[in-house]
Amino acid sequence: MPRGGVNHRGEQLALLAGLSHDRATDPRLGELLSDVEASSLAGDPESVEAVNIRELRRDYDRETRLPRRLVEELARVSALSSQAWSEARDQDDFPAFAPWLDQTFALAREKADAIGYEGVRYDALLDDYEPGMTTDHLSTLFAHLREQLVPLVDSVRAATPSTNLNREFPLEQQRAFAEGAATKLGFSLDSGRFDLGPHPFCSFIGPGDVRIALRYHQRNFASGFLAVLHETGHALYEQGLDPAHYGTPMGEAVSLGIHESQSRLWENLVGRSNGFWQHFYPQFQDAFDVRDVSMDEFRRVINHASPGLIRVEADEVTYNLHIVIRFEIERALLSGELKASDLPGAWNELYTRYLGIAPDSDRNGCLQDIHWSEGLIGYFPTYTLGNVYAAQLFDAAEHSVGPLEDAFAAGDFSALRGWLGENIHRHGKRYAPAVMIEKATGSAPDPSALIASLAHRYGGTG
Amino acid sequence: MPRGGVNHRGEQLALLAGLSHDRATDPRLGELLSDVEASSLAGDPESVEAVNIRELRRDYDRETRLPRRLVEELARVSALSSQAWSEARDQDDFPAFAPWLDQTFALAREKADAIGYEGVRYDALLDDYEPGMTTDHLSTLFAHLREQLVPLVDSVRAATPSTNLNREFPLEQQRAFAEGAATKLGFSLDSGRFDLGPHPFCSFIGPGDVRIALRYHQRNFASGFLAVLHETGHALYEQGLDPAHYGTPMGEAVSLGIHESQSRLWENLVGRSNGFWQHFYPQFQDAFDVRDVSMDEFRRVINHASPGLIRVEADEVTYNLHIVIRFEIERALLSGELKASDLPGAWNELYTRYLGIAPDSDRNGCLQDIHWSEGLIGYFPTYTLGNVYAAQLFDAAEHSVGPLEDAFAAGDFSALRGWLGENIHRHGKRYAPAVMIEKATGSAPDPSALIASLAHRYGGTG
Repeated sequence: MPRGGVNHRGEQLALLAGLSHDRATDPRLGELLSDVEASSLAGDPESVEAVNIRELRRDYDRETRLPRRLVEELARVSALSSQAWSEARDQDDFPAFAPWLDQTFALAREKADAIGYEGVRYDALLDDYEPGMTTDHLSTLFAHLREQLVPLVDSVRAATPSTNLNREFPLEQQRAFAEGAATKLGFSLDSGRFDLGPHPFCSFIGPGDVRIALRYHQRNFASGFLAVLHETGHALYEQGLDPAHYGTPMGEAVSLGIHESQSRLWENLVGRSNGFWQHFYPQFQDAFDVRDVSMDEFRRVINHASPGLIRVEADEVTYNLHIVIRFEIERALLSGELKASDLPGAWNELYTRYLGIAPDSDRNGCLQDIHWSEGLIGYFPTYTLGNVYAAQLFDAAEHSVGPLEDAFAAGDFSALRGWLGENIHRHGKRYAPAVMIEKATGSAPDPSALIASLAHRYGGTG
Repeated sequence: MPRGGVNHRGEQLALLAGLSHDRATDPRLGELLSDVEASSLAGDPESVEAVNIRELRRDYDRETRLPRRLVEELARVSALSSQAWSEARDQDDFPAFAPWLDQTFALAREKADAIGYEGVRYDALLDDYEPGMTTDHLSTLFAHLREQLVPLVDSVRAATPSTNLNREFPLEQQRAFAEGAATKLGFSLDSGRFDLGPHPFCSFIGPGDVRIALRYHQRNFASGFLAVLHETGHALYEQGLDPAHYGTPMGEAVSLGIHESQSRLWENLVGRSNGFWQHFYPQFQDAFDVRDVSMDEFRRVINHASPGLIRVEADEVTYNLHIVIRFEIERALLSGELKASDLPGAWNELYTRYLGIAPDSDRNGCLQDIHWSEGLIGYFPTYTLGNVYAAQLFDAAEHSVGPLEDAFAAGDFSALRGWLGENIHRHGKRYAPAVMIEKATGSAPDPSALIASLAHRYGGTG
């Protein structure tokens, strides 16, 4: 965004945050909540009314603990800091960004202290994105993942990528093919649309209006296509919420982790599978006139795994180690154990330790992500939670509706979509994320399914 | 936009319009206005304070005359009606849109009656877009234009277009060339940015942030390039407003007509000129490796005039007749003299009479523009007012700062930009549009300069 407009943007965002805070903390709202909490409406805790009351109370209490001044300051600093980050990254100049990072984490500490927490400060931030999840639980889960993934990553390191797909894929054909696949999976064009944009993204505008922005790459078919499946996963969740509950917690997605589980499931567990390509590969061959690459070879290319520096370009196997690193670092920055000025060193050391590669620059290292500059602390773990949940949900769906890949091979994605709609989408915020996973899969959040899935598909193929 | 979301969009827009109306009509605002009107601040009518008071009073009075119910209904119907228009146009099905048009004009009558007017109803609507302009004044001005333009259009009809420029212009090079030209004219990239979008458009986000969306066509260089100059004209106006007055009438553009004068001036009077291309043609030849077309030939192509059915594709000479037709028709629809069901016949008859061509379909006829479906009635004339003002301003600038094309040929656009900044941009809403034109040019709004400019450049070349 234009540099000249950054101060005004900061002021406007602060003003909006303040006005929104005023509305959300109106004492009259608190009184009304108390009234309905004491009424019979709150009787059955799983009823629509009780869920809405519980979630509105949760939001009200969190918001009223924050002073308006802090809410405004978080918005203002986020605008200025993300501008500073963008320039620092362009110039590979970490020291120019470091003071903003210190300020952002200082505000995050202030926010966490205002909200309060039982365990550690980080819990209060995490709770914004994944209600009910704790640092303790996450640490155990991530430690388990890390132990299993580091050797698995080592085993894929030696694999040589096939370059047979290195050719031109005309952008218009990519677009037509990908949008066709997304509608085949169930994306409704009556209630949504596709556009081109600088970042793949899914926006929920309102009932009947979910929009996906996409980007395609001339010589890299898989990157654009898998991104479409990813955004379609987000979109199917939004299109699967009950429009009758729009505007209330019962009509809203429950957490970032659950949201990400939907995108990762369609991207990785469906879109990389043998069954999926049994259906789509002949169409792919016709659309792009690819006659010299077998389906198995194609799948080896799109499923190639190898450690890299950039999170958003990472494959399924290495991806979660990028998140483990960020999780460790942001806790250290929040506790004050790590100072912003020491971030590059800590970052490079963890990349070397877990992924076996050291960044060649801060631009490709600790400056690569926008999140911290926008004040999004506690957000990264939800990406890996999404992977964890996705593997659990896929197994449970298969257990319930039968062999999924056979259905994919026959071009049928409705059984999986129906199961997700029934077990996740339609519930809105009825259950906390961990409860929802347990109800849907029979187990609490647990990385075993993910580890088993990755080991099965990638182990020993190196 | 997705069809499934149209009802929700309508409800949201109605709610926002209602909330905004509540704020704008707060009685406390009226009391405060009365207080300052009675104070010494309002003493010098051209002072910053007096201008702001006058314009805030004008807005307050207009808004308070409208009932909230009507404001909401206008917003709701606009959302539904523009969706219906989009579908009717796609299917070339005017009867499906006709009831919406009747409803939109019925609401416009209600709005005009609520606001009040001295002459005719249309005055009340016109005043939204071009404060102070009257139907009477416009009718005289348009009649004068029409009398002169119809024979001029006849004289260009026989001209055969050169097709020498019919070749591929790579989109990335077009983009680089056009954005380079826009910055050369004075567009500040520190305070703005360029994007690609489905329609050329200029958005003012706030001080230091003016964004231009553009579209390029592989085989039609002139269409994209002239659109960039057009949007740059709008952007230079916004970037030339005084940021110290941001958020008050003194920091806002005065009218659609004046805004359009800026875009038309840079597009037509600068961007089609000999001097402009003396500077840019060698760069153009290098950028696109065009060696077989002389600059004169190039200018004949981009300045080719010939009657067509579509307003947005019209050349400089025929353009204003498209507007004359819409002006006549919307007055008849507003007065009730013309019913929506009779619109296609009336439209086709006027195209035949003034432009000598009859639409082959309603899609290329009375369904081509979105304006009426969105409730924008009284808006079309500002496009032609823009052309009228632009010709007057260009002459006055030249009179003041010397031969402009000589400066363009030397790559100097600062004298013209500076004159416009001094005489138009920096004044915000200090003067009514007609007063601003008279102060800047020495004459009231008058089509003579435009007619002379077109006759000089296009007359006798047929």
